Amino acid sequence: MSREAPEGDVPAGAGERCPGRQRSTEISISDLGEFGLIARIIARTKANTVTLLGPGDDAAVVAAGDGRVVATTDLLVEGRHFRRDWSTPYDVGRKAAAQNMADVAAMGAVPTALLVGFGAPPELAAFWAERLMDGLVDEAAAIGAAVIGGDVVRAESIVVAVTALGDLQGRTPVTRSGARPGDVVALCGRLGWAEAGVAALRHGFRTPRAVVEAHRRPQPPYQAGPRAADAGATAMIDVSDGLLADVGHIASASKVRIDLSREALPVDPPVAEVGAALGIDPLRWVLTGGEDHALVATFPPTAPLPSGWRPIGKVTAAATDGEVLVDGDPYDGTGFDHFAG
Amino acid sequence: MSREAPEGDVPAGAGERCPGRQRSTEISISDLGEFGLIARIIARTKANTVTLLGPGDDAAVVAAGDGRVVATTDLLVEGRHFRRDWSTPYDVGRKAAAQNMADVAAMGAVPTALLVGFGAPPELAAFWAERLMDGLVDEAAAIGAAVIGGDVVRAESIVVAVTALGDLQGRTPVTRSGARPGDVVALCGRLGWAEAGVAALRHGFRTPRAVVEAHRRPQPPYQAGPRAADAGATAMIDVSDGLLADVGHIASASKVRIDLSREALPVDPPVAEVGAALGIDPLRWVLTGGEDHALVATFPPTAPLPSGWRPIGKVTAAATDGEVLVDGDPYDGTGFDHFAG
Repeated sequence: MSREAPEGDVPAGAGERCPGRQRSTEISISDLGEFGLIARIIARTKANTVTLLGPGDDAAVVAAGDGRVVATTDLLVEGRHFRRDWSTPYDVGRKAAAQNMADVAAMGAVPTALLVGFGAPPELAAFWAERLMDGLVDEAAAIGAAVIGGDVVRAESIVVAVTALGDLQGRTPVTRSGARPGDVVALCGRLGWAEAGVAALRHGFRTPRAVVEAHRRPQPPYQAGPRAADAGATAMIDVSDGLLADVGHIASASKVRIDLSREALPVDPPVAEVGAALGIDPLRWVLTGGEDHALVATFPPTAPLPSGWRPIGKVTAAATDGEVLVDGDPYDGTGFDHFAG
Repeated sequence: MSREAPEGDVPAGAGERCPGRQRSTEISISDLGEFGLIARIIARTKANTVTLLGPGDDAAVVAAGDGRVVATTDLLVEGRHFRRDWSTPYDVGRKAAAQNMADVAAMGAVPTALLVGFGAPPELAAFWAERLMDGLVDEAAAIGAAVIGGDVVRAESIVVAVTALGDLQGRTPVTRSGARPGDVVALCGRLGWAEAGVAALRHGFRTPRAVVEAHRRPQPPYQAGPRAADAGATAMIDVSDGLLADVGHIASASKVRIDLSREALPVDPPVAEVGAALGIDPLRWVLTGGEDHALVATFPPTAPLPSGWRPIGKVTAAATDGEVLVDGDPYDGTGFDHFAG
């Protein structure tokens, strides 16, 4: 596998076009210093309509017209959440933004703003920090959000801390605890793609491109969150730890038992392809693979599902064990525990 | 120096009183697992009046009655921002909360909520994470704010990422860029205490207690921020990198030159004491020591300073170099650059 940045990440001949200026691939962040790096990073942000005061001051100010603000935070650590030989900094930025904004969407809100804490060794190329920021900015912009502030510090290895804010636009937040017996469990988005991509990369493959890309840049169905809230979703979560684990969070918080239908679960062609190549049942990735950030929600049995959502199971009974079954039986597999193993 | 937790951090005999339960000093966070640790941490949070939905879901929801929200983030890294042999986890929590909420106060806003990303090696005692959270919760509660959400991940060394939200309560945010020639530069809070404390610790001393404590638990004058905004402050910043550096940020952003008066600067007795003991001019710590999170603001010459604020200098002229002088001359010292050296 190659450590070179993919084509397009470093403008060819950028150094030649600016003869007085070093290319940022050659400049380390310690060459720039803290304030130099901050200035370069801020230059790459773009304000959006809710940014009342953007980066560069003690704090940012964001509009919160709803009178409430949704807030969530995630920490990404090199070697644990990304590898520099598997993902470009731009990909890491997109992923960090996506996983946070998916949490906002899973409340039924629209993401509005990101704050980014960035820790890195001083010898890291400034280029890396800049492309990370581009990834964050672009993923945010795709849904109308903006990077409004941050912090940079020296650290042994790369750490990216992202906080996302969101606007409920008058909606009642959809928690994990409102599922009721009889509700339909529905899905919007991909399952198992990122995990199949990781499996392929671990085995030294760089294809199928679709799943490798899915690992690098998840595509959460952001708009599906507010749509589900509008359609009366009783509970919602984004699938970050694996379908069984995350549906289990709904089951525990709502004190219900949930039964998923194996037949209703999507085993998409590229996921099936990796499974066949590696001799692994792809259903395992669909049920336990995280990081695609699909949304799962429960809906009253009479509510028509909003577009893009498909039924995948039912809330069968009140129960305190938070159990999730597949076709009536427990599945022998678990989600992801950051401190296990 | 001792690595033992100070008295009071580990309840004596806690294990004996709960015979069926291991003491959390003996339990590692990998023993608990991610979700066990999260449950323990959440149990230590306390909701406040603006917490509409607290920790435990995909995201939290906070009231933002002003229709705007102030947001800022900071990353603290072990070995860089704290040392486990110099600070208890409780101290680290208080400091992490304080430095973020000081940024909120420096906009003229009241801190309302914190989000906390926590990265740690799996062998770390669960106790450490719990006491960190207690420190965050207590510092927040002291000003009416609450910890509303977070994330825990495995990391090589301890990382604490804090995001603070705040409420302007109708005030215009006070940025760094509004200082005008003729304005008075004023200070509220301590200068040089934390830096004198670090100097003492580096030399193997654990006293004077006041400055060592100041390093462990800064005491930002939170209420002074909104008070300054109400009194017409034209620019404001919290002193995190050192007085000269941070006043320099106001000077640069406002395109003015600032002259500080040496005589007006407080060289408080415990700071002077450490200086005398180590043969160092304590004024250096007053001018360049960070992390006390005093507030510095500029006020129109006719505005009476709010209580707790003292004049320390003047905005002398428009200028693009952002220069800060002391009694008319440049001072030979700088603030803190996270990537320097």
